Amino acid sequence: MKIVEPLEIEDFVIQAMPDTSPPKWHLAHSTWFFEDFILIKHVAGYDYYLKDARKLFNSYYETLGTPFPRSMRGTIARPTVQTIINYRKHVDKKITSYLSSEQEIDDEILALIKLGIHHEQQHQELLITDIKYNFSVNPLSPVYRESHIQSVAPAPVEWLSFAEEVVTIGTNEEDFSFDNERPAHKQYLYPFSISSRPVTNGEYINFIEDNGYSTAQYWLSDGWEEVKRNNLTAPLYWHHQDGTWFNYTLAGLKEVQEHEPVTHISYYEADAYARWAGYRLPTEQEWEWAFKDEKIEGQFLESLQLQPSIQNGKAVYGTVWEWTRSPYVPYPESARPEGALGEYNVKFMSNQMILRGGSCATPQHHIRPTYRNFFHADKRWQFSGIRLAKDGK
Amino acid sequence: MKIVEPLEIEDFVIQAMPDTSPPKWHLAHSTWFFEDFILIKHVAGYDYYLKDARKLFNSYYETLGTPFPRSMRGTIARPTVQTIINYRKHVDKKITSYLSSEQEIDDEILALIKLGIHHEQQHQELLITDIKYNFSVNPLSPVYRESHIQSVAPAPVEWLSFAEEVVTIGTNEEDFSFDNERPAHKQYLYPFSISSRPVTNGEYINFIEDNGYSTAQYWLSDGWEEVKRNNLTAPLYWHHQDGTWFNYTLAGLKEVQEHEPVTHISYYEADAYARWAGYRLPTEQEWEWAFKDEKIEGQFLESLQLQPSIQNGKAVYGTVWEWTRSPYVPYPESARPEGALGEYNVKFMSNQMILRGGSCATPQHHIRPTYRNFFHADKRWQFSGIRLAKDGK
Amino acid sequence: MKIVEPLEIEDFVIQAMPDTSPPKWHLAHSTWFFEDFILIKHVAGYDYYLKDARKLFNSYYETLGTPFPRSMRGTIARPTVQTIINYRKHVDKKITSYLSSEQEIDDEILALIKLGIHHEQQHQELLITDIKYNFSVNPLSPVYRESHIQSVAPAPVEWLSFAEEVVTIGTNEEDFSFDNERPAHKQYLYPFSISSRPVTNGEYINFIEDNGYSTAQYWLSDGWEEVKRNNLTAPLYWHHQDGTWFNYTLAGLKEVQEHEPVTHISYYEADAYARWAGYRLPTEQEWEWAFKDEKIEGQFLESLQLQPSIQNGKAVYGTVWEWTRSPYVPYPESARPEGALGEYNVKFMSNQMILRGGSCATPQHHIRPTYRNFFHADKRWQFSGIRLAKDGK
Amino acid sequence: MKIVEPLEIEDFVIQAMPDTSPPKWHLAHSTWFFEDFILIKHVAGYDYYLKDARKLFNSYYETLGTPFPRSMRGTIARPTVQTIINYRKHVDKKITSYLSSEQEIDDEILALIKLGIHHEQQHQELLITDIKYNFSVNPLSPVYRESHIQSVAPAPVEWLSFAEEVVTIGTNEEDFSFDNERPAHKQYLYPFSISSRPVTNGEYINFIEDNGYSTAQYWLSDGWEEVKRNNLTAPLYWHHQDGTWFNYTLAGLKEVQEHEPVTHISYYEADAYARWAGYRLPTEQEWEWAFKDEKIEGQFLESLQLQPSIQNGKAVYGTVWEWTRSPYVPYPESARPEGALGEYNVKFMSNQMILRGGSCATPQHHIRPTYRNFFHADKRWQFSGIRLAKDGK
Repeated sequence: MKIVEPLEIEDFVIQAMPDTSPPKWHLAHSTWFFEDFILIKHVAGYDYYLKDARKLFNSYYETLGTPFPRSMRGTIARPTVQTIINYRKHVDKKITSYLSSEQEIDDEILALIKLGIHHEQQHQELLITDIKYNFSVNPLSPVYRESHIQSVAPAPVEWLSFAEEVVTIGTNEEDFSFDNERPAHKQYLYPFSISSRPVTNGEYINFIEDNGYSTAQYWLSDGWEEVKRNNLTAPLYWHHQDGTWFNYTLAGLKEVQEHEPVTHISYYEADAYARWAGYRLPTEQEWEWAFKDEKIEGQFLESLQLQPSIQNGKAVYGTVWEWTRSPYVPYPESARPEGALGEYNVKFMSNQMILRGGSCATPQHHIRPTYRNFFHADKRWQFSGIRLAKDGK
Repeated sequence: MKIVEPLEIEDFVIQAMPDTSPPKWHLAHSTWFFEDFILIKHVAGYDYYLKDARKLFNSYYETLGTPFPRSMRGTIARPTVQTIINYRKHVDKKITSYLSSEQEIDDEILALIKLGIHHEQQHQELLITDIKYNFSVNPLSPVYRESHIQSVAPAPVEWLSFAEEVVTIGTNEEDFSFDNERPAHKQYLYPFSISSRPVTNGEYINFIEDNGYSTAQYWLSDGWEEVKRNNLTAPLYWHHQDGTWFNYTLAGLKEVQEHEPVTHISYYEADAYARWAGYRLPTEQEWEWAFKDEKIEGQFLESLQLQPSIQNGKAVYGTVWEWTRSPYVPYPESARPEGALGEYNVKFMSNQMILRGGSCATPQHHIRPTYRNFFHADKRWQFSGIRLAKDGK
Repeated sequence: MKIVEPLEIEDFVIQAMPDTSPPKWHLAHSTWFFEDFILIKHVAGYDYYLKDARKLFNSYYETLGTPFPRSMRGTIARPTVQTIINYRKHVDKKITSYLSSEQEIDDEILALIKLGIHHEQQHQELLITDIKYNFSVNPLSPVYRESHIQSVAPAPVEWLSFAEEVVTIGTNEEDFSFDNERPAHKQYLYPFSISSRPVTNGEYINFIEDNGYSTAQYWLSDGWEEVKRNNLTAPLYWHHQDGTWFNYTLAGLKEVQEHEPVTHISYYEADAYARWAGYRLPTEQEWEWAFKDEKIEGQFLESLQLQPSIQNGKAVYGTVWEWTRSPYVPYPESARPEGALGEYNVKFMSNQMILRGGSCATPQHHIRPTYRNFFHADKRWQFSGIRLAKDGK
Repeated sequence: MKIVEPLEIEDFVIQAMPDTSPPKWHLAHSTWFFEDFILIKHVAGYDYYLKDARKLFNSYYETLGTPFPRSMRGTIARPTVQTIINYRKHVDKKITSYLSSEQEIDDEILALIKLGIHHEQQHQELLITDIKYNFSVNPLSPVYRESHIQSVAPAPVEWLSFAEEVVTIGTNEEDFSFDNERPAHKQYLYPFSISSRPVTNGEYINFIEDNGYSTAQYWLSDGWEEVKRNNLTAPLYWHHQDGTWFNYTLAGLKEVQEHEPVTHISYYEADAYARWAGYRLPTEQEWEWAFKDEKIEGQFLESLQLQPSIQNGKAVYGTVWEWTRSPYVPYPESARPEGALGEYNVKFMSNQMILRGGSCATPQHHIRPTYRNFFHADKRWQFSGIRLAKDGK
């Protein structure tokens, strides 16, 4: 609710592209998750607060009936924002009362509640990125929140080197981890080095000025098609005016800061930059192995800065999601959960790429070294960026 | 403002297809028309109330800069509804004060003000039809206003017959008429007969049940493509359930009433029905000649019934817009207005068909016998219907 | 068969856009017309020469089964060209033998045979325009036939003037006319003037150089969309290179000749040019009335020149099809033929514009003053051009 | 040339979808590869046989100029088939004469010639699969070659089991291997079992009859979208008629044989089948490890049977390409070749899945255990099939 505080009612309703959802939909959907997966199933006598909640607020669980078409979420005015806030309060109360009742709570239900909380954290981040995109198409460039980050020149890149080794990747964490992070398993790694910080806007501008967007050999074939089809010449939200690069931020239209990490780029752009620079992107296993002991520090969602900057040493967390060269596939010996929860992660395991790290829009307690985020290679509306790697020590 | 009274703020924002606009856009656009065409040009010292009004609220006047893409109007949350209402009050006040000032007002400006009022009336009707469409995609079938029409069995069709004759069509009305109605001109008409009332839902259901939608020979070639592409089987807003036809109305989901005039059909459907029935649609000249002396009576927008019914004798006005077989072309010896107003009507004179009459959503004082409405042949979200004609007396 | 003489077998197979058909399809379809409408119905014991002829060579007669998708005609290799030529010879022989038999031939059948011949003439013209388009996409710019037209400076435009009058349009010709030309009927015309010759390339280049293609106010709204969607800057087949305009012709790539009539333009381009020039396009009735007594002279298909030039006085025929401002609608009191023939013309009476005159690709005996050709407003692959008109004498 | 022997000239020209190419394009492109990569660069005085070869026959080498749009290859009639055959003979002769000359041939050039031969083998397979698709859209179901395979009931499935182990995958083969197979590298494998034969049509029909195509939970999310968008209900080329499944084969329309391996399915279908059956697809490493010592036997292209059947024991080769669950990514420590050859394989490393094995359309000497084929997950026109795997021994 804190995230939507600065919004006008009108802002809750809009959806500027099929990938984004209206803020009110996010609020209702993350509430519905608790209602349909926990209250309806496990609390005797509970009935839906809104009769047609499932029809409208089911995102993609085909086992729960045909979801309302995603691209049309922005055409739904009712239930109103106030009704959804009431719905939210009602479900919160019921869940709290259920948790504080004297009856013993089944482990499976506790696991569902944890899942519901982590699910809600994911939607907290999406709320931020969707509000940003939704606002960006408005010629008035509305301000969501003012921001006062000072960007400072980051230290020069150092290469962190790792030896050839069989390593352990993933987790068996029982307290909480997503199914796609499990199980912990062994992986053979070759020697590699990874950069001590993400690529900056200033560095990325060198790529642009060296005709990066018009030189086919830097690009994957699908990426080059994307560049030509959409006339791409810069990251999302950037435009060039009178010799200066501007970008739309959640604090309004601003000059691009050369010291900030480049963000809002596709996998194709990250990969093309790396090839131009003479390096490559890391695999997700290299990334995880390199940063498994890194402290979870950074400017997370809670700071409400909402524009990435390189503040702490390696800027691993709370900065940008870092594209890896690893497609999203199941880990060895992983199992698919039964029923609707089997649709949570596993069914997206095609045509998507893994991102690691966590951005300035990620809740601090949501992230961990084994966390696997994933998006299609052409998506740019997340705070996605680049960390370089290379073979050998 | 009375039209939007039942709306929640959320309802003002949505746009369920490119043809419809958000209610707040209609309010802002019809206000902007007065601001940009009158206040800015003719009132010394007047400046835009909203700096970027033209950028957002220009509909299609290319001579006034590139309009914001029509299909994206529903992605614009700001300015808020309240700001637009304030904008509206501000401009109303300025126009009123200008009109009541002591200075003499130029004829050209008075003509612009009249045009602005008629323009606003057009958007009053569009508000109704757009709210209807926007609401219709919501699985909750929201009610805009309750309605209490009693539909009664209409009298049997009689054929009104007219002799071969050179007639006068159109108008030279100086008080107010649109450029596309002018000038009055002569037209050679052959003997024809026209129906004493529109086609009813009951009659149209006969066409459906006689495989009207699956029999190619009733259809124009473009219409048949449309039927197959969109799997059309009934008018817009209709669905069949357990042997009964239901349709979405502004009073919610209701059973289709057999005595009401059929509405929300395309030109293709009107034309196919007429061919199936062994008749044809009238030309716009036949229509105008037949009804030139008909009183402007009916259940107009002001009645807020908003569902067509055959109440008065011939149901010529205040019922449904009646598709004619006449494409929208300029009248002989007509002139195109200069500047942006030249874009008002004339530039749409290709690929559109004329409708005559005026519907239950038309303001009473907006309509007249010479009025020419026009839509592309596939459009169905207006209150469009059928009046049959035939050759000979 | 003379038309396809210069073709290689490969040329018979290709279809470079959905609007064009492979030459072998034209040969087979016009043969099939005689087979299915005459031999099958009226010659005892006749059976299809190719078992699946109707499946593949029916163009659009829905009453004869679902036609093979038009856009996929270029994916059909078999039956081979030789088989189709044999098919053609077979049907020709059967028709000839039927006609020369001693039995009396019914008037209805004679009418069908005449229709089959006129139908074939239409496909002769389409063969030429489709071969042109199909060849044009090949970077090798193949030559269909060399041509040796000398283009000469045309006489200055004179305005042919006509008085206000009730005139007779259309025909009741029993010998041969299409259903869409009938019946002869009266029309009220206002005074108008029409140009003594079509617009030339040189004149059209003035429009281009005066920013015709980037000035919205010259264009119909649908036309302006078309210009932006397809980045139109010149007629079809033109490209600008080193300061010179070139165009692809059936004799290969050539410099644009300033004295030749402009051709391969859409209705939108014709209309925009006229508005820019301060005139308008004629209605089809004005055109017919102005040229009803003009001799049918010009460089027709039979001359095999296949590039329009202004040779004879008014260049009414055998030059370019002239876009009129009249949409394609039925004449007053016209009747629709029964059965499949009812689909021949009437079902296309929506969203198309009338062209008059006949081009350098039209067979000489196919054309007459009352002839109504029709295409959608955006089509450019016919030899279409411009003749200007204006109100008043 | 043997592959195209049964073709009529017309068959060389057509392209029934963007993924397929006209046979004459394949012949010209594989010839051009030798001309542009070897003769032009390395044979003094050699000039292009066809001036515009590169413009038309470059497939996707952006470094060699913008390729002619792939989807329009079927619109190009010239150069004729005979010219392309002459072109082919000319280049063959030049290459032969170059190889038999007395001068010593550089290793790099020999490598290019080997690459040219393997490249041509790839196009031999594509010729077969493209001819099949191109013919399949013709309602006449043309026969390419008769076939006389006897399908016999395959042995029941056995599970071949493998222990946990660090294995070596890929190759360092200097004689010939593609860049994407190199280098040999270590990989940690968990215990797994793999099926002793591919899935049969009969088994796949069980999946269909168990509502496989209408049960969302078996499908990846992208796959389910594909099923709904295209109304998929069976493999490509199958249709159900009067209770029997038929499929189009290169020998014409035939009944589906229950003992033949299922083929012409997408990755999504393979994955859904595996989930329905309670198993999974193998990774490419598991596949390679399991079959690294299998003899390269089967019914390859050379047998001209061209319909897969399970003849030899495990049917690993010469049957169907087997979808793995591994996306196409670079091997550890692999290098990208310089120049145009850098585009050969590496630039396709996004959004594609690995297939292993080699089909009935693969040339026998083209295939090896380390061979990596790759297609987008929705493609079905290759001879692609299913081999199941499971965790554990």
